[in-house]
Amino acid sequence: MVAVKGRLFGLGVGPGDPDLITVKALRYLQSAAVVAYPVAKGKKGNAFSIVEGYLQDWQIRLPLVYPVTTETLPPPFCYETTLRTFYDQMAEEIAVHLEAGRDVAAICEGDPFFYGSFMYLHDRLADRFETEVVPGVCSMLAGAAVLGAPLVYRNQTLTVLSGVLPEQELSRRLADTGAAVIMKLGRNFAKARKVIEDLGLMGRALYVERATMSAQRTLPLTEVVADSVPYFAMILVPGPRWEA
Amino acid sequence: MVAVKGRLFGLGVGPGDPDLITVKALRYLQSAAVVAYPVAKGKKGNAFSIVEGYLQDWQIRLPLVYPVTTETLPPPFCYETTLRTFYDQMAEEIAVHLEAGRDVAAICEGDPFFYGSFMYLHDRLADRFETEVVPGVCSMLAGAAVLGAPLVYRNQTLTVLSGVLPEQELSRRLADTGAAVIMKLGRNFAKARKVIEDLGLMGRALYVERATMSAQRTLPLTEVVADSVPYFAMILVPGPRWEA
Ligand SMILES: C[S@@+](CC[C@H](N)C(=O)[O-])C[C@H]1O[C@@H](n2cnc3c(N)ncnc32)[C@H](O)[C@@H]1O
Ligand SMILES: C[S@@+](CC[C@H](N)C(=O)[O-])C[C@H]1O[C@@H](n2cnc3c(N)ncnc32)[C@H](O)[C@@H]1O
Repeated sequence: MVAVKGRLFGLGVGPGDPDLITVKALRYLQSAAVVAYPVAKGKKGNAFSIVEGYLQDWQIRLPLVYPVTTETLPPPFCYETTLRTFYDQMAEEIAVHLEAGRDVAAICEGDPFFYGSFMYLHDRLADRFETEVVPGVCSMLAGAAVLGAPLVYRNQTLTVLSGVLPEQELSRRLADTGAAVIMKLGRNFAKARKVIEDLGLMGRALYVERATMSAQRTLPLTEVVADSVPYFAMILVPGPRWEA
Repeated sequence: MVAVKGRLFGLGVGPGDPDLITVKALRYLQSAAVVAYPVAKGKKGNAFSIVEGYLQDWQIRLPLVYPVTTETLPPPFCYETTLRTFYDQMAEEIAVHLEAGRDVAAICEGDPFFYGSFMYLHDRLADRFETEVVPGVCSMLAGAAVLGAPLVYRNQTLTVLSGVLPEQELSRRLADTGAAVIMKLGRNFAKARKVIEDLGLMGRALYVERATMSAQRTLPLTEVVADSVPYFAMILVPGPRWEA
């Protein structure tokens, strides 16, 4: 008798509001034996909070506990190595369930393949196990929706940037695009706002934090207090309105 | 007595598979008195096909019939003017229902604010009527999911391009990004593939048409017959795998 392996599902659960999960992801989520989710030490996990109300008692919770929360570690520690080891271990924990025939739903905030943590599990497991990815509503489009700001018109170019990029690169790329989004703000906010000011884009730029979550907040870029910007925040520079 | 106006909903219905609609959009869709959808003359409408099975008999269907299907018209006709007049008229048809107190759900394939036709209705109506936009799964992330291709890692830059752009601009932008997506292929396919070949990106580029629809097709870029590329097709150039 050949043992039937479990299947791996990478489920986008949307940007925060539990109602922004897709019908398909919800169905897969509620039928999986194991639900795996990324979580920082001592926290609940953002993706987990989104789906918590949908889970059944019989489903196995598998928290994937991040070893680090910052990209700068004191020597001799190395962020890259630490993270690599972490994903190796987490992939193995998931593999144990899959080998035992249990389906695993690995949930991911927003969309799994748009800067999602699921990508690192996918890269380790998709060759070994049957894998299906269910796309989700990404944070950038949730941000545009709650701001009531059409993001990109017709044949405009859209550039999605990480706030981690150096000031020069942010500036060069923002100066040469139709529309833009800057993700991963947090401590990178002040730098990003300065670039936008220098380029004369303050009139177009919009700010949102925790879009579609209960603590959602939108405010003018000028009024944002740089020190208080959370990780779940972004700046949108919508493309100029196309006068169709 | 003050008449209560209807509300305008811009609903992203996802990339094709009806199950990729969100729980929220589905709820709004099924409770709206009027469902408005873009459609080419003599066609059924792509967004309409996605949600058809969800609609109730009592709901009013409001097709918004596109006057043109190509961006090049014989003189004295002008694409921009024709389209502007069209959206003005469609906005007024919708406004009649809203003024009469009927909620209107304007559906949009993928996400409403990501190159969506809903943007032109939003620009005309959002100031006059209570408006809510529900984000949807965009085609680019559906494409990545069905291709099993993580799109953009960590701090990489993502550039979203229209295939309509001139060869030179496509080339310049593709040469200077971490990950890229080229939308609106159709007759622009041959040009886009040439640029990718010239840049030595053939090994990374992926092709998908009608992602998550019943006629979905993925095939190697080398095997695509340029003349047969539909409008609902895209090329993805995923960012280089980040070895976490
Ligand atoms: C690691 S990326 C994950 C993106 C996610 N996979 C997606 O599809 O949106 C994290 C970044 O996404 C953005 N983000 C995610 N959710 C957000 C939300 N609800 N509101 C604002 N920004 C959000 C923030 O910029 C954050 O730094
Ligand atoms: C006017 S844009 C609409 C985009 C849509 N609002 C979204 O969020 O994806 C049309 C382009 O989107 C892409 N597209 C839309 N749906 C697609 C699908 N199911 N498969 C492949 N490409 C698709 C094609 O490149 C097409 O030319």
